[in-house]
Amino acid sequence: MTSKLRIVPLGGLGEIGKNMTVIEYEDEILVIDAGIMFPESDMLGIDIIIPDFTYLRDKTDKIRAILVTHGHEDHIGALPHFMAEVDAPIYATALTAGLIEVKLRQAGLLSDVDIHTFQAGETLELGCFTVEPFHVAHSIPDCVGFGITTPVGLIVHTGDYKFDHTPADGWPPDFAKLAEFSQRGVLALLADSTNADRPGWTPSEMVVARALDDVFRTAEGRIIIATFASLISRIQQVADLAEKYGRKLAITGRSMRENAKMARRLGYLEIPDHLLIDVDDAVKLPQHEVAIMATGSQGEPSAVMGRLARGRHRNLSILEGDTVVFSAYPIPGNEEVVFRTINQLFRRGANVLYERIAPVHVSGHASQEEMKLMINLVRPQFLIPIHGELRHLKQHAEMALHMDIPQENIAVIENGTPLELTESSLEILPRMPGGYVFVDGASVGEIGWPVVRDREALAQSGVVFAVLATSDAGKIVGQPEIISRGFVNPKESDELLKGAAEAILRAADVYSKMKRDKLNEAIEDALSRYLYAETGRRPLVHVVVK
Amino acid sequence: MTSKLRIVPLGGLGEIGKNMTVIEYEDEILVIDAGIMFPESDMLGIDIIIPDFTYLRDKTDKIRAILVTHGHEDHIGALPHFMAEVDAPIYATALTAGLIEVKLRQAGLLSDVDIHTFQAGETLELGCFTVEPFHVAHSIPDCVGFGITTPVGLIVHTGDYKFDHTPADGWPPDFAKLAEFSQRGVLALLADSTNADRPGWTPSEMVVARALDDVFRTAEGRIIIATFASLISRIQQVADLAEKYGRKLAITGRSMRENAKMARRLGYLEIPDHLLIDVDDAVKLPQHEVAIMATGSQGEPSAVMGRLARGRHRNLSILEGDTVVFSAYPIPGNEEVVFRTINQLFRRGANVLYERIAPVHVSGHASQEEMKLMINLVRPQFLIPIHGELRHLKQHAEMALHMDIPQENIAVIENGTPLELTESSLEILPRMPGGYVFVDGASVGEIGWPVVRDREALAQSGVVFAVLATSDAGKIVGQPEIISRGFVNPKESDELLKGAAEAILRAADVYSKMKRDKLNEAIEDALSRYLYAETGRRPLVHVVVK
Repeated sequence: MTSKLRIVPLGGLGEIGKNMTVIEYEDEILVIDAGIMFPESDMLGIDIIIPDFTYLRDKTDKIRAILVTHGHEDHIGALPHFMAEVDAPIYATALTAGLIEVKLRQAGLLSDVDIHTFQAGETLELGCFTVEPFHVAHSIPDCVGFGITTPVGLIVHTGDYKFDHTPADGWPPDFAKLAEFSQRGVLALLADSTNADRPGWTPSEMVVARALDDVFRTAEGRIIIATFASLISRIQQVADLAEKYGRKLAITGRSMRENAKMARRLGYLEIPDHLLIDVDDAVKLPQHEVAIMATGSQGEPSAVMGRLARGRHRNLSILEGDTVVFSAYPIPGNEEVVFRTINQLFRRGANVLYERIAPVHVSGHASQEEMKLMINLVRPQFLIPIHGELRHLKQHAEMALHMDIPQENIAVIENGTPLELTESSLEILPRMPGGYVFVDGASVGEIGWPVVRDREALAQSGVVFAVLATSDAGKIVGQPEIISRGFVNPKESDELLKGAAEAILRAADVYSKMKRDKLNEAIEDALSRYLYAETGRRPLVHVVVK
Repeated sequence: MTSKLRIVPLGGLGEIGKNMTVIEYEDEILVIDAGIMFPESDMLGIDIIIPDFTYLRDKTDKIRAILVTHGHEDHIGALPHFMAEVDAPIYATALTAGLIEVKLRQAGLLSDVDIHTFQAGETLELGCFTVEPFHVAHSIPDCVGFGITTPVGLIVHTGDYKFDHTPADGWPPDFAKLAEFSQRGVLALLADSTNADRPGWTPSEMVVARALDDVFRTAEGRIIIATFASLISRIQQVADLAEKYGRKLAITGRSMRENAKMARRLGYLEIPDHLLIDVDDAVKLPQHEVAIMATGSQGEPSAVMGRLARGRHRNLSILEGDTVVFSAYPIPGNEEVVFRTINQLFRRGANVLYERIAPVHVSGHASQEEMKLMINLVRPQFLIPIHGELRHLKQHAEMALHMDIPQENIAVIENGTPLELTESSLEILPRMPGGYVFVDGASVGEIGWPVVRDREALAQSGVVFAVLATSDAGKIVGQPEIISRGFVNPKESDELLKGAAEAILRAADVYSKMKRDKLNEAIEDALSRYLYAETGRRPLVHVVVK
């Protein structure tokens, strides 16, 4: 019997193979990425979600390396949690390593972790695996995919990519390497499916450069550009335009400032000192001499754009004649708050440009024609669509079918589903349950669905507590004290709360012979029914008999 | 002094002039539409939002008529609330009137309200106003806009429209009427701005018909099509295809069944009896003989598609080989839940088609080129962009500027901002505060932001109640009883709750000399601090000393 190569994408529902992927052969394991997911709108109060490491917990000693594709949160954000449990080296390019170091330092873990930097094109020997990182273009510099030669064959993992021939950093993806892999023969391709429902070819970063050049050429007042804090290449584009059009550049928002500082230090961002000014100084310059880069492109209320939109920024406010550019897409689920922020900025007199009305942002992921090109460049025996929701993986598989990859050679799987590969076969094993872990404040994994469901009920109709006092003889004395939150306006609800107290006392009387816990339940039930009859709503109800 | 014509869009933030518009001259008022808004994601627990009628409350006797453009919820949904306060006749086309009657009957108001039906092309004399409804194409049949001749001039209100030359009902918009208005001279155009950020021309319904024909021609299993319950023309398209391709049609989902029944009765929907079957019978037929139309295109968990996605439908379940079509766009804010529903349907083995991967839906609103055509057809002196968020109105205004309508003749305003028109002038008055009313269960307007903010806090971190018993002497006796909801998993929080009890008793001891209400506050404060230190979260905290 030959050994098999096992591939397991870890994480919850949502995007598959995005946050963490395990490559396992006998007693050696490579982990690709360790990122976070953002909670969906019904995961109330949850800060972030990390992959469930259960699968790896009893084999941490087998982990040879954590390979990181690039420095976005959904690929590195869970490292502080993961590295607290795992003693293995991290391998990343210099910029990605810089971003990881910032995270690990904040978590107090930096001194415990070995971080090795590599350059795309190098070869890493890691146990039974030979890893060849290759350069790809995406929306952050220094991104790689991995060619991994394993005992059963060559696996290619694209990471997040697009085929941009004219990227902002002038470094196109490594077609030659992909072609070389193809010549050697590729057993399996794990490929980004994010944009599998977008026809055509994702526009180049150069399109954005042109659109932003238009903005700089025509804007008469200040130019304020919001984007992702990690979008180093966009910062470079804006800095170049500021220089070209004689404006000073202020960068504001803590995370963007920190990233820019680190990227300048490492040489990924070239901004001459004379170009950069503080926001405090920017407000003193004539408006046509100012450009500002800011955080908050997702409408986050505490980031710069959110505060500007509500007039709550410490030293900056929107002026009539400002041109504001949202150089980012709303992440799915953020559309409403992003558009609300845009409306608020219009209300304050800004002219706001966003992707729907000018090409001031492009996706960092391949569209359909690029995905087809990837398949034809690599010519894998097996295709494993990753990085996308199930609907994207299905679309990706559909495309591959039309390119004559046989149905049985395409594995559309969900997180937690192990695949086993030999030199000539691919088998899908049963999915392991579970898969994600909620992080809420200081708690990691303690909050589960029951708590979140309670929060949902609280969010719907609030909560009503009633406290009853009993005499030593166990008889109820006095009036119940009723406290509500998120249910009614207490100032206008005297009548309702009086009725509620009566309903409670009536129930307490009728059911007075019951045992204490049954009595509580009966009273809660009566109170619930009364409140529903009066208001049409069902708050959480809790009665304490003291 | 000449009298002025006053135009006031009523409603809250969000879409402007969408739900209700007041046209007022001296002591005569026309109201156009009375619709609802859907709550934004931070309006927790709110069912719907209706316009604030305050502006009209002391002049209800002046209202000559409520003119209704079409039968969508955001144009008729507030009528049951409005007609409870107002004694004026409603004017609508037959289908719209049918939909209004259903609503008023449910509210027990039908016998109190005069509903007059008219046909597009008629003329209505209403006090000092002459109203000429004209046919427009939109995503529900029998839609109109209004030409309103007022003492100061002719006003044209487009309603929701698109210029569809090949609509599903074969009745294109009334270009001749618009041209005739133009010849007479139009003082002001109030025009739909919904798609002001979409370039080009909105595709015709015929594009959908073709895409659906492809589905019927190629699908081998059942075809299940989800759309809006009111999208009568889509039901007609599907019925025609079912007939053409030899399938029976089942319509499921209460609202869609009711609408279809009413539309058949009024002649807006032509489906032969032999074509229609019940869902119970559909499941007994061979799969290739079945088409099903269903509600739930917005991912609503209780509608048909939501239940099918979760495997919770009473008598229908997804089979391998089913083709499911989402023939609708996600309404902004619904993207996440719609795509989650689609992923769940894929997981159950369906092939799911949606707008991104096949043109199975088109917008019902004009895109930029149509909006320009409307302006050039009508050639108004003043342009008042309506039906859109502020960003859309700004875009609409921008287009008009390029068409040489002078800046000062374009009024971009928000709801609650009155405009005053004379034969040659337009003045914007200060905006009135307020504007919308929350409906939550049986409560209308009683729930405001403070309650919603409490719900937000509850949704974030839950609530912790503590009850302390005191002796007759006022001394605290025994252990505090602590109840939490939506905060921690009670089963795993013994330690934490024990610590909380200790923190409470310590505070009660330290602050024992305080007056009762101050003491409560001090204990709450201590409890809050303890919980934050332990969990990094801040639940609502309430202490009762009994």
